Amino acid sequence: MMAEILEQPHALERTFNAEHKHAERFSRFARGKFRLIVLVARGTSDNAAIFGRYLLELTTGIPVSMAAPSVHTLYHAKLDLRDALVIGVSQSGAGTDINMVLESSRKRGAYTIGITNEAKSPMAGLVDDVFLVRAGRQKSVAATKTYTGQLMLFYLIACALGRECRLAEIGAIPEHARAALGTVDQIRALVERYRYMRQCAVVARGLNFANAVEFSLKLMETCYVVAERFSAADFLHGPIAMVEPNFPVLMFMPPGRTFASQSQLVRRLHGLRAETLVITPEDAKIPAATRAIRVPGSIPEIYSPIPYIIPSQIFAALLAEAKGIDPDRPRSLRIVTKTV
Amino acid sequence: MMAEILEQPHALERTFNAEHKHAERFSRFARGKFRLIVLVARGTSDNAAIFGRYLLELTTGIPVSMAAPSVHTLYHAKLDLRDALVIGVSQSGAGTDINMVLESSRKRGAYTIGITNEAKSPMAGLVDDVFLVRAGRQKSVAATKTYTGQLMLFYLIACALGRECRLAEIGAIPEHARAALGTVDQIRALVERYRYMRQCAVVARGLNFANAVEFSLKLMETCYVVAERFSAADFLHGPIAMVEPNFPVLMFMPPGRTFASQSQLVRRLHGLRAETLVITPEDAKIPAATRAIRVPGSIPEIYSPIPYIIPSQIFAALLAEAKGIDPDRPRSLRIVTKTV
Repeated sequence: MMAEILEQPHALERTFNAEHKHAERFSRFARGKFRLIVLVARGTSDNAAIFGRYLLELTTGIPVSMAAPSVHTLYHAKLDLRDALVIGVSQSGAGTDINMVLESSRKRGAYTIGITNEAKSPMAGLVDDVFLVRAGRQKSVAATKTYTGQLMLFYLIACALGRECRLAEIGAIPEHARAALGTVDQIRALVERYRYMRQCAVVARGLNFANAVEFSLKLMETCYVVAERFSAADFLHGPIAMVEPNFPVLMFMPPGRTFASQSQLVRRLHGLRAETLVITPEDAKIPAATRAIRVPGSIPEIYSPIPYIIPSQIFAALLAEAKGIDPDRPRSLRIVTKTV
Repeated sequence: MMAEILEQPHALERTFNAEHKHAERFSRFARGKFRLIVLVARGTSDNAAIFGRYLLELTTGIPVSMAAPSVHTLYHAKLDLRDALVIGVSQSGAGTDINMVLESSRKRGAYTIGITNEAKSPMAGLVDDVFLVRAGRQKSVAATKTYTGQLMLFYLIACALGRECRLAEIGAIPEHARAALGTVDQIRALVERYRYMRQCAVVARGLNFANAVEFSLKLMETCYVVAERFSAADFLHGPIAMVEPNFPVLMFMPPGRTFASQSQLVRRLHGLRAETLVITPEDAKIPAATRAIRVPGSIPEIYSPIPYIIPSQIFAALLAEAKGIDPDRPRSLRIVTKTV
């Protein structure tokens, strides 16, 4: 897992370099063509799709729906998908249900894209167009480099469909990712504090909400922590009642539109004597947080999700080590899970 | 909370009787008019919207998107919502962010509906059409009768937009709800077993997935249990790794399309020596479940979500009592939470 975390800057560069011209070609075909985007995925790929949802709505103005696969696979709904772009996301390209949704969507009039690591996968064979994550083979059961690679491809697809495209800034993301790897010493110094943590909440908002869901998944599958995930607003609509003194709340606090409300939440949790661990810029003032992981450099919010997930991946890998768990072989799991 | 749980059959009858003609009128205006449905809500109302999502896609064939409010409220995205029906759900009708989304959606070309308890709320004043939950004033912070009332209105709206409408079967739901209240003695007999439960997972699929999310919210806010919520398929894509012997997994197992895969999951969890508590029909065979709550009568899957949520509401109320918590006044919460 740690080896694959460290590969990410290179993998992101490879994906960007190999796919940005593809995105330009796709743009000529696709711009103005779609009225709806549907994203379909499971597990970590579904978390990447949550990011895609925010990014695509913000930059293209096209409404996005996160598919519920069972609507297609169990109930065989006949959705009207004319003028729709359906994007399937799967590391292996072998997810049975995801491929069933892509197939039935094509029949119902949708144009389909696959985001996958595997050029020869069933998914790659059945979609209209494939965007390939060039992360190399994933060996750890805990997905890391494929998640950030999927995010990179969402940037390129958003570029292709959107009102403006800042390719140079997307091309700079691998550099931000490299800098974020520098948080490893900070994290090593604080991770033992969480050696006996059995439950927690992970909270973020907006463009980084996907990261909260992904961090909680990593904590569940590699550290066996019962880690709940919430958008900050949803957290206030009920779940905050479960917070008692010392309850750990892990938070993404990148710069930008969500920072002020996240700061308010930190103060409120401080008032409840909860433990807060925040992932935040090196120069941000967070007086009431219990612990902070400081991400170096100045990164605009829209490009923060890739560099900000990295400290949480490192945290999960090192916490697993501290707990004596092998994060590459979580109990009860395999790399490819097939569900219908 | 328990008083409002018991009011549900009457409240559902009132809502059905008062609104089904309204749905017929809406049908004449709306049928064939919309290419996309967007649902926007927070908290328990958002859980009702999750049900609405499945029901509307299955019965109308119109794709549904669950809105991420921050896309509108923080990032001010300019979504193209021509030909879209946007449905806001809010018990109080006073949720700031939900109303902001409805307002901006109207400006962007959408037709808007409000599902609320309060005829004089800000929401009711700003939407094109209001469907009123006739549940009477909600006094407990823990929403119960408003959740099932919102589900009832989703049935009527689906009827209005859908390919077929079985009004008699929808009208029979309050009777199923009344029968489901009969589970109270079973639940009283087993709830003390969970007196010291600090964490659990709640798992369902398809049309009852919304119930899993709602049950977990009730456990968090009224019993302070760290209760994770999953679709059964997502649960297998990672989170199942956190299940160790005696870990409690609470499951909805109504009859129908999801029953076979839920049974498989029970057997798998039995193999992991987890504790399973299933809510299932009185005559279903679930050999490997640790405990079962048996719902009387024979209810087709599509009409099961209202009667099936009721035992879980009773469970949460009685567990709160067993833990010595007042479920009507959870710490850190008020009835109306305002977020932007």
